[in-house]
Amino acid sequence: MAATPLKVCIVGSGNWGLAVAKIIGNNVKKLEKFASVVKMWVFEETVNGRKLTDIINNDHENVKYLPGHKLPENVFIHGICDEISGKVPKGPLGISLIKGIDEGPEGLKLISDIIREKMGFDISVLMGANTASEVATGKFCETTIGSKVTENGLLFKELLQTPYFRITVVDDADTVELCGALKNTVAVGAGFCDGLRCGDNTKAAVIRLGLMEMIAFTRIFCKGQVSAATFLESCGVAELITTCYGGRNHKVAEAFARAGRTTEELEREMLNGQKLQGPQTSAEVYRILKQKGLLDKFPLFTAVYQICYEGRPIQEMLSCLQSHPEHI
Amino acid sequence: MAATPLKVCIVGSGNWGLAVAKIIGNNVKKLEKFASVVKMWVFEETVNGRKLTDIINNDHENVKYLPGHKLPENVFIHGICDEISGKVPKGPLGISLIKGIDEGPEGLKLISDIIREKMGFDISVLMGANTASEVATGKFCETTIGSKVTENGLLFKELLQTPYFRITVVDDADTVELCGALKNTVAVGAGFCDGLRCGDNTKAAVIRLGLMEMIAFTRIFCKGQVSAATFLESCGVAELITTCYGGRNHKVAEAFARAGRTTEELEREMLNGQKLQGPQTSAEVYRILKQKGLLDKFPLFTAVYQICYEGRPIQEMLSCLQSHPEHI
Repeated sequence: MAATPLKVCIVGSGNWGLAVAKIIGNNVKKLEKFASVVKMWVFEETVNGRKLTDIINNDHENVKYLPGHKLPENVFIHGICDEISGKVPKGPLGISLIKGIDEGPEGLKLISDIIREKMGFDISVLMGANTASEVATGKFCETTIGSKVTENGLLFKELLQTPYFRITVVDDADTVELCGALKNTVAVGAGFCDGLRCGDNTKAAVIRLGLMEMIAFTRIFCKGQVSAATFLESCGVAELITTCYGGRNHKVAEAFARAGRTTEELEREMLNGQKLQGPQTSAEVYRILKQKGLLDKFPLFTAVYQICYEGRPIQEMLSCLQSHPEHI
Repeated sequence: MAATPLKVCIVGSGNWGLAVAKIIGNNVKKLEKFASVVKMWVFEETVNGRKLTDIINNDHENVKYLPGHKLPENVFIHGICDEISGKVPKGPLGISLIKGIDEGPEGLKLISDIIREKMGFDISVLMGANTASEVATGKFCETTIGSKVTENGLLFKELLQTPYFRITVVDDADTVELCGALKNTVAVGAGFCDGLRCGDNTKAAVIRLGLMEMIAFTRIFCKGQVSAATFLESCGVAELITTCYGGRNHKVAEAFARAGRTTEELEREMLNGQKLQGPQTSAEVYRILKQKGLLDKFPLFTAVYQICYEGRPIQEMLSCLQSHPEHI
């Protein structure tokens, strides 16, 4: 007798959830291991006078977040508006595709930890150099799955990999998730550089020093063995590169450096409702570093925070790096 | 009694040699450890009817390779046209700033190994995200010194570091040097991507897969422990980024993808006498991999070679990466 097929449910229907739904919807059709119907939880909204769930169920397209991309017809959506925690069958596995960190009462907290605590089951994470629109279009890209239980990571790889969406699995899950958050702060620094019209090499130095601070911070935060090799995965160096050359944190920081206005003003104006994570993450990181007396070991993170929130002149961005512990 | 000051001689007077001469000339004035006169060996040429050595000695400027940058007055030049090996005093130390590899009768060979064999003394290497013009202008950047004898690496750091030219020393010297050569081949791949108008994430994937092939190749070539951490230094990830976003290999490869002409034609037209190292290095690397039966482990290096020299359609660049061993 064949094992009962595994049911897949996607929680969330923003552009990223939809891009992934497109992949999963096609993959489960080919894989006997998975049930062929994929459910999607959506935060109900009204778009053009219609309920978003109705639009997605009938048109197989989310016109608000990922217009122009039809979802496979087997992706259905359940408009669940309360907590879903009580309604999940026994023994599920989860994977979080959310980039960011939360600021809890004890400081910075991983999203996967919040889900793990609330839901009580194993959570893997997926992070990497992949934007929703490029993944939805089927452009070749990579991603990293971090899973404390390798077997679970490999199962999610099976569910999510396609010929153009290539996956590596590592067990350093917390590192993978922290990369997704910390890279935004580095991108703000890289954006400042571009705004100051620094050269290519200066920008590469800022990106690299940012990467070294990401590693050092992860080592402190995870309190354990953190492998430098994980930072060579898509979630590390690759996503850092795209974020520093094209992401929204970089774009706003560059405009900030040129216009001399606050990041909040520019955020409202330039991002159409989306939030800028880089400065926010820098504030959470700053609080931890200050508390531990480690600010001088993280001159880049510190400079980004002080320029964003304490009115430090942006021109000091580079002089801050001249006595970086990396070069002592 | 104070130790005899160490004499410094710069061999070569291209734009890179000159940018470094500017740093060294200023540093030795402040450091008692070094003699205050710096000699420079130059390949004699005639520029605007004058001998290049006369121009540099009298005008303190190399109008051909680094126009507009005056050298400190204590940098003198000796027009030595024969081999210098017989004329070096006892017990010298060397550092090579040459990026590239040589194709010897037994295949690929490091420049530092050639110098070491010919001259018979210890050679360190310096590689990183620093172009001559930006270093000469005093833009903030980083570099990596690789030295098998740490003490020697630290001495060169003292000689070369300034507040805006920041140095890290590692003992993985061969890795540092190989990075400088292999990155050009990756940049050709990244240029093809841009020429094909791939997205940011695809390009980041190509750069990262290139980095992983650089690591794997270095492990084979060095036959020993190669630390992944060295690839996180300026010589690794940082130089790879600048080369893939702005270097000449990238530029010509992008034009090649758009124009459909040979890299040699474009090289002649676009580079004003400078050589394109990426395709050439790919050929040397290809020969070694083929001989060892390892081509399928290096799909990116192989695709770059085959597109450059065997007429493989450039459109196959990305399909080559769909079965990359990184994702198996």
